[in-house]
Amino acid sequence: MSTTWDRLLPRLREIEDLASAVRLLHWDQAVMMPPAGAASRASAIATLQGLLHERHTAPEVGDLLDELADDDTLDDDQRAHVRVFRRDYEKATKVPPELVKELAELEGLAYQAWTEARPAWDFGILKPHLERMLELKKEQADALGWEGERYDALLDTYEPDMTTAEVEAMFAALGDGLRPLVHDVIDSAPHLPEFLTRTYDAGKQEAFSQWLVQKLGFDTDAGRLDTSPHPFTAHIAGGDVRQTTKADPRDLMMSIFATIHETGHALYEQGIPDRLIGLPASRPASLGLHESQSRMWENQVGRSRAFTEFMLPHLKEQFPDELGMLTPEGFYRGANHPRRTLIRVTADELTYNLHVALRFEIELALFRDELAVADLPDAWDAGMEKHIGIRPENHADGVLQDMHWSIGALGYFPTYTLGNLYAAAFFAKARADLPDLDEDLRNGDGSALLAWLREKVHVHAYLRPAKEIGEEIIGGPLTAEPFLDYVEKKFTTLYD
Amino acid sequence: MSTTWDRLLPRLREIEDLASAVRLLHWDQAVMMPPAGAASRASAIATLQGLLHERHTAPEVGDLLDELADDDTLDDDQRAHVRVFRRDYEKATKVPPELVKELAELEGLAYQAWTEARPAWDFGILKPHLERMLELKKEQADALGWEGERYDALLDTYEPDMTTAEVEAMFAALGDGLRPLVHDVIDSAPHLPEFLTRTYDAGKQEAFSQWLVQKLGFDTDAGRLDTSPHPFTAHIAGGDVRQTTKADPRDLMMSIFATIHETGHALYEQGIPDRLIGLPASRPASLGLHESQSRMWENQVGRSRAFTEFMLPHLKEQFPDELGMLTPEGFYRGANHPRRTLIRVTADELTYNLHVALRFEIELALFRDELAVADLPDAWDAGMEKHIGIRPENHADGVLQDMHWSIGALGYFPTYTLGNLYAAAFFAKARADLPDLDEDLRNGDGSALLAWLREKVHVHAYLRPAKEIGEEIIGGPLTAEPFLDYVEKKFTTLYD
Repeated sequence: MSTTWDRLLPRLREIEDLASAVRLLHWDQAVMMPPAGAASRASAIATLQGLLHERHTAPEVGDLLDELADDDTLDDDQRAHVRVFRRDYEKATKVPPELVKELAELEGLAYQAWTEARPAWDFGILKPHLERMLELKKEQADALGWEGERYDALLDTYEPDMTTAEVEAMFAALGDGLRPLVHDVIDSAPHLPEFLTRTYDAGKQEAFSQWLVQKLGFDTDAGRLDTSPHPFTAHIAGGDVRQTTKADPRDLMMSIFATIHETGHALYEQGIPDRLIGLPASRPASLGLHESQSRMWENQVGRSRAFTEFMLPHLKEQFPDELGMLTPEGFYRGANHPRRTLIRVTADELTYNLHVALRFEIELALFRDELAVADLPDAWDAGMEKHIGIRPENHADGVLQDMHWSIGALGYFPTYTLGNLYAAAFFAKARADLPDLDEDLRNGDGSALLAWLREKVHVHAYLRPAKEIGEEIIGGPLTAEPFLDYVEKKFTTLYD
Repeated sequence: MSTTWDRLLPRLREIEDLASAVRLLHWDQAVMMPPAGAASRASAIATLQGLLHERHTAPEVGDLLDELADDDTLDDDQRAHVRVFRRDYEKATKVPPELVKELAELEGLAYQAWTEARPAWDFGILKPHLERMLELKKEQADALGWEGERYDALLDTYEPDMTTAEVEAMFAALGDGLRPLVHDVIDSAPHLPEFLTRTYDAGKQEAFSQWLVQKLGFDTDAGRLDTSPHPFTAHIAGGDVRQTTKADPRDLMMSIFATIHETGHALYEQGIPDRLIGLPASRPASLGLHESQSRMWENQVGRSRAFTEFMLPHLKEQFPDELGMLTPEGFYRGANHPRRTLIRVTADELTYNLHVALRFEIELALFRDELAVADLPDAWDAGMEKHIGIRPENHADGVLQDMHWSIGALGYFPTYTLGNLYAAAFFAKARADLPDLDEDLRNGDGSALLAWLREKVHVHAYLRPAKEIGEEIIGGPLTAEPFLDYVEKKFTTLYD
């Protein structure tokens, strides 16, 4: 038993309690809070985050971490907790407080500017804020430190240990494989199926989602499903994982697949071993790994022939008039209908990663000083032409569509694609290990797959680095291959 | 401008932000949290409350308060904030930390014992905890200090400035007036109306409540209505006041009048002037005053001939089959049906205060060492016989029915009756000031009454003591007279 660890433990517990309060304040803000509560909520969140930062960066914490670095009485879990907590501590202490403060203020201002710029189709409103943002993010990267290139420092905050060079190579292979495929598939795709143009009662969509999440193994004694304008999943605290979906009458597919997507995130959070809960290594190992879970359930499972076949009769119970005549083939094709679209969040599985590739290329060019913020709109439109083959008619559907850059989330976009690549690679392995998987999914039974993911991914939480967890499953480094194999097979046979 | 005030202000803001997070954690626990989140939630609440206590009792706060006591640059609001904050500070610092801790632990244990004792009808399970509770509450009272008698110290925590002697005199007059009236009215009351024995869809009850709170002036842009097993109202933060109701299919009246009751609390909280929000004197001045608002809306308004007449056609829209044939007279009488009942929370307006009188007498006897905890069950049964005229057949319906004593809420019960007395006294004045009030309520329009309450009560928040606010409205000290006049007139003409 380490006495130093015993001195650290109450601090870790206090940090977790404060952090869980912040997470609840955020969840409630997005899901429950009445609009007039916005200002007081912002103040409460800022105060608690200030306390949390104070607790994270206290000099005593640094001393304890130094002592624990040489403490050979720690067990494996404790060593992992110390490793993760030291990582957090260093990221929190390396950046000067003035820069942290200026970034926080700029994020508020730039986000506000973005909310005005988008409906006005006016990049000029956002431009000065983005210019300052880029300067500050570069300063932040330099403060955090990097080896290969600056962008590494930001990428590492979302996807620990993954380098820009590695990601760039994956995107290159991915884009080369995808672009010709996209053109082949979409050029021969039929018109949008008629059932995707109808409206569907929001209350019935919600009822279907409530049924579906339980069917997929989400434990509602230890979580909730609600609705919010932007679906998300939040681990509030031990025994309390919350997900949201949306129910837009004009978009039945959005509701179903947002629900399955968030359930993938939520199952990961609910799969973290109890003994780790509340301690630093209890969190998922990276955003890419987190996204691999949501994407696999959404796409490899949810959009499969087998699972769409399972869902259709249950959907027809809710919507007998709207879907009564729809065939399993028709539903499967509709759930995967490929389109050239300007908007990332509604893009299909085939084109989605090209939307991300565009953003990654632009971020890299900005960070490598090869592109000025003033030239961003032109670079965007040219990139859309290159990757997707269409050009936006206005900036709202173009460079202004995402809020990420306005809140300083640079280095974040690539994790969406890493998630897709991991998902395809993992699913190929799961298929090999679980010969009955297709039959299971046809019966709506994801329990064997969930058990597989629990054992291969969830149980490790952040006890080991994400890359190590991924490589052990894949049997080598992550590449674009399994994803390219998967989409090629799926989309070239979609209309067979 | 006071510079000392400027040094206090950031501390007040931080305390408010922490306190609002604690209130949200509690609200969410009661309304939203999945069951498995209980343990981590308890930990988060304890940690934040610990921080809050630390902030409240910091020595620097004492120094600032001492400086501000002589600061003649403060304006009226600031003086009130300092007065209220000093009151909190003194209550928080006078009780030794070990006693605070032991009380908190005992409350958890005793509440747990109560949850076991009640279904087992076994007072013995709770008895040792209550004995210890009584000892600790006496120690707490002595630490807080008192002049007349010990019970004053506890009463003052809920109803500032009100003395035991004053409350005892009011209860004596009230009981003497009520008991003969109860016997006369109930002995001649008819059987329970048939519509009160039916079941009513919970979803439709909720829909009616959502409509009703808005009709009563509750601002849903600055608040929410949800359901929970025990209805309550919580001021989360500025612009965010939340109330709950329940919807039990077997008890339509409970749903309607819990909703109106909580709306009374919520309208008070929403009526606090914006400039005070987040500062110490922004809270309602006492629990009795708070309860006066809920009781007035529930009883003087909600159970009036005029307002029941307004509600009935709207209720019939939700329940055409169940209520189609009900007359306004029948609904009015059903909403006020007097009964001898063992349970306080379902008691009618006529007998409710006798339930409270019993509890107040027992608390006083315990505090005056005239009654031992071991003799509580007998004292309870005898008191029920004296006040209500019936005896419980088991302790679940008797001495074990309320959880209050198990959580150390001694000195709290009388505020329910103070609320009823204030409500009747205020309503008599409002009637005199607002000649069209009855006609307004018959049209479902409470806006003139709400404006009157805003001006007479809400606008003062805790800028002035509750007693002063009350006396200014009543034109003298609070007595049982207006309440006795009100119930005598109402119940002797109920069946005319």
